[in-house]
Amino acid sequence: MKLVGIAMLMAASLCFGQEQGDFQPAMTNVPDAQYPRVDSQSRVEVRVKAPDANKVKVNFWSGPKLDMVKQSDGYWTVTTPPQAPGLHYYTLNIDGAEVSDPGSRSYFGGGKDSSAVEVPEAGATYYLPQDVPHGQVREVWYHSRVTGTWRRAFVYTPPDYDTKAKVRYPVLYLQHGAGEDETGWTKQGHANFILDNLIASGNTKPMIIVMAYGYARRAGQPVPDLTGKPFGSPEMMRAMQENAAAFEDDLTQVLIPFIDSNFRTLPDRDHRAMAGLSMGGMQTFQVTFDHLDLFSYIGGFSGAAGALILGDRKLDPKTDFHGVLADPAAFAKRVHLLWIGVGTEEPQRMKDGLERLNTSLTEANVQHVFYESPGTAHEWQTWRRDLKDFAPRLFQTAQ
Amino acid sequence: MKLVGIAMLMAASLCFGQEQGDFQPAMTNVPDAQYPRVDSQSRVEVRVKAPDANKVKVNFWSGPKLDMVKQSDGYWTVTTPPQAPGLHYYTLNIDGAEVSDPGSRSYFGGGKDSSAVEVPEAGATYYLPQDVPHGQVREVWYHSRVTGTWRRAFVYTPPDYDTKAKVRYPVLYLQHGAGEDETGWTKQGHANFILDNLIASGNTKPMIIVMAYGYARRAGQPVPDLTGKPFGSPEMMRAMQENAAAFEDDLTQVLIPFIDSNFRTLPDRDHRAMAGLSMGGMQTFQVTFDHLDLFSYIGGFSGAAGALILGDRKLDPKTDFHGVLADPAAFAKRVHLLWIGVGTEEPQRMKDGLERLNTSLTEANVQHVFYESPGTAHEWQTWRRDLKDFAPRLFQTAQ
Repeated sequence: MKLVGIAMLMAASLCFGQEQGDFQPAMTNVPDAQYPRVDSQSRVEVRVKAPDANKVKVNFWSGPKLDMVKQSDGYWTVTTPPQAPGLHYYTLNIDGAEVSDPGSRSYFGGGKDSSAVEVPEAGATYYLPQDVPHGQVREVWYHSRVTGTWRRAFVYTPPDYDTKAKVRYPVLYLQHGAGEDETGWTKQGHANFILDNLIASGNTKPMIIVMAYGYARRAGQPVPDLTGKPFGSPEMMRAMQENAAAFEDDLTQVLIPFIDSNFRTLPDRDHRAMAGLSMGGMQTFQVTFDHLDLFSYIGGFSGAAGALILGDRKLDPKTDFHGVLADPAAFAKRVHLLWIGVGTEEPQRMKDGLERLNTSLTEANVQHVFYESPGTAHEWQTWRRDLKDFAPRLFQTAQ
Repeated sequence: MKLVGIAMLMAASLCFGQEQGDFQPAMTNVPDAQYPRVDSQSRVEVRVKAPDANKVKVNFWSGPKLDMVKQSDGYWTVTTPPQAPGLHYYTLNIDGAEVSDPGSRSYFGGGKDSSAVEVPEAGATYYLPQDVPHGQVREVWYHSRVTGTWRRAFVYTPPDYDTKAKVRYPVLYLQHGAGEDETGWTKQGHANFILDNLIASGNTKPMIIVMAYGYARRAGQPVPDLTGKPFGSPEMMRAMQENAAAFEDDLTQVLIPFIDSNFRTLPDRDHRAMAGLSMGGMQTFQVTFDHLDLFSYIGGFSGAAGALILGDRKLDPKTDFHGVLADPAAFAKRVHLLWIGVGTEEPQRMKDGLERLNTSLTEANVQHVFYESPGTAHEWQTWRRDLKDFAPRLFQTAQ
């Protein structure tokens, strides 16, 4: 029987090894789910049981949209072409219903619990758990007088936080993107493992990371009715601005004081950074430039300054950002790091916007860092790499 | 226009107020999702968009299974009869595909990220966030030499843990049920809010709670192939026993030492409790009775001692549990609390098993607590109430 087993294995690898690929269940699957699965060519095979459906499609949000094929056993399957490394959100469409794949763990994106598949990056271990000291990710709840609600945040404390009871730490406020929430940077982004590994390597200062919920509605403010209002409509823009202003007040008036009184922080601008991805990057630019008394490190990951990114004009250092860029020498003294980044495979408009901001800052002699993530899209692999480049630059020059 | 609005409101409440109910979006929904919704009669209205589907059903795991009705706008809807209070898992079936409801947050149950709807219990606030000091829920990672993998656990630290830096705390190990994971006791159960409220009321000792993942497979052990093996088959029972043994070793040999060296615990049996729900209750009985050197408080929530519950025989104090119940006086000295509970609406076999265990313990003169949760099923409201009754009894008599 043992010999038969070996013979079958050999036959399988001889006959089907190349053609069928070497698919393995994705690391983002629920326990013991065999699908979706990924092979060494980074192809993704999706499979779902829907015996009575007429049409099933899979929609990778930044990738292919494919019709799935019904098999005789009632399962529908499809295999993608090779995908970029990283975490890819996707949705199934079953006879018109947009739903998650029961085989995937859920990741909050698109305003709901969505599916995602992790395509490993060959040789990249910086975002995976390693045999190094690990920090903790702490769920904290605070009552916001801005929103009138209990709000949840996650706080990464570095590995030695509990043992070095006299040490105080700098803080990075790190924001998710549109449609995501405060779970994104650890669940999708692995920010805790990235920091564990960076800190263990010795070139990143131990720091606290605070991940807040980027949506906020002022107490008593009704839910805006955007029914029938197209994306980018004045009603939608106003709702987004109201959200951004409420978030800014909650972060600066409630959350920062809460963190500073509940964690051993260094509670001054020299030891406080903020960064965010996409919408979180726009929020970062708004909050930090409105409050340079609070922040001295600024990061925009695939998203930075509202109209400067998505509009088509250049930066005007005299008027934009309250004019603080007009004197680049004074700004460089005041802001220890201005960092922007974009993936080379992001939508053209996003790339153009970030590159235009980069050029504008260079022309205005504003000291900054511009980082391009090769081969990645408007997705989490870009933002993991951003954090890996950004975090080691923090708090090195702090007074 | 204002008058017209008021008139419409009045007309609506006059004409439809009683018939249509006073439905509100469930507190378990994703942000701004209007469905599912719940009215003051505890009816649940479910709604999903599936314009091209032939048949859509909703399956409440411990409740009604209903055909949904297609509306002209492509949405399918149904309203349940009044439901018991608490959190109800459910699944949608869309043309044969068992999927989650995009309107619901996901809760890990049934081995996957599933939907659930919270039906409020009138007047019950003990499991909701209140204006009291809040503890933290900490995500920690440890490498297990038993499983050969990185494992995640959640650790509740009580409100004063960070400020009273010299105080050491007792520990409750608290386990989820079958198909759930280490997120269950906080996401579904609100264990953190229950403890915050109990501690604030002054009658519960501040304690640490550790919530571990109840599934484990020994390093190198292959995934058991249970294809075609029915529930309860010898292969399935063996896989479950192997899992339980690996979990027991991971908990007692790896996790407890990890917790005791990373948290300010009182690391002895007088200050260590274990409880769990359903499968977690069975694991609790196995682990604690195998390790009375480690534990002195024991809780079985809707599940306790394997064959004693699901089989049909009475307890034999001379042989069961390594015979430690044969001398009830010695046992009462050694084990400070033996607690079992069940909901009155649980399946008959579960109720019978717990009641038989209760009777057996009474007949054997074994000091214990038997708690019945009125009107609740094999669901989280039962286990929230269990925790509310169980936790105040812990560590009150510790030496």
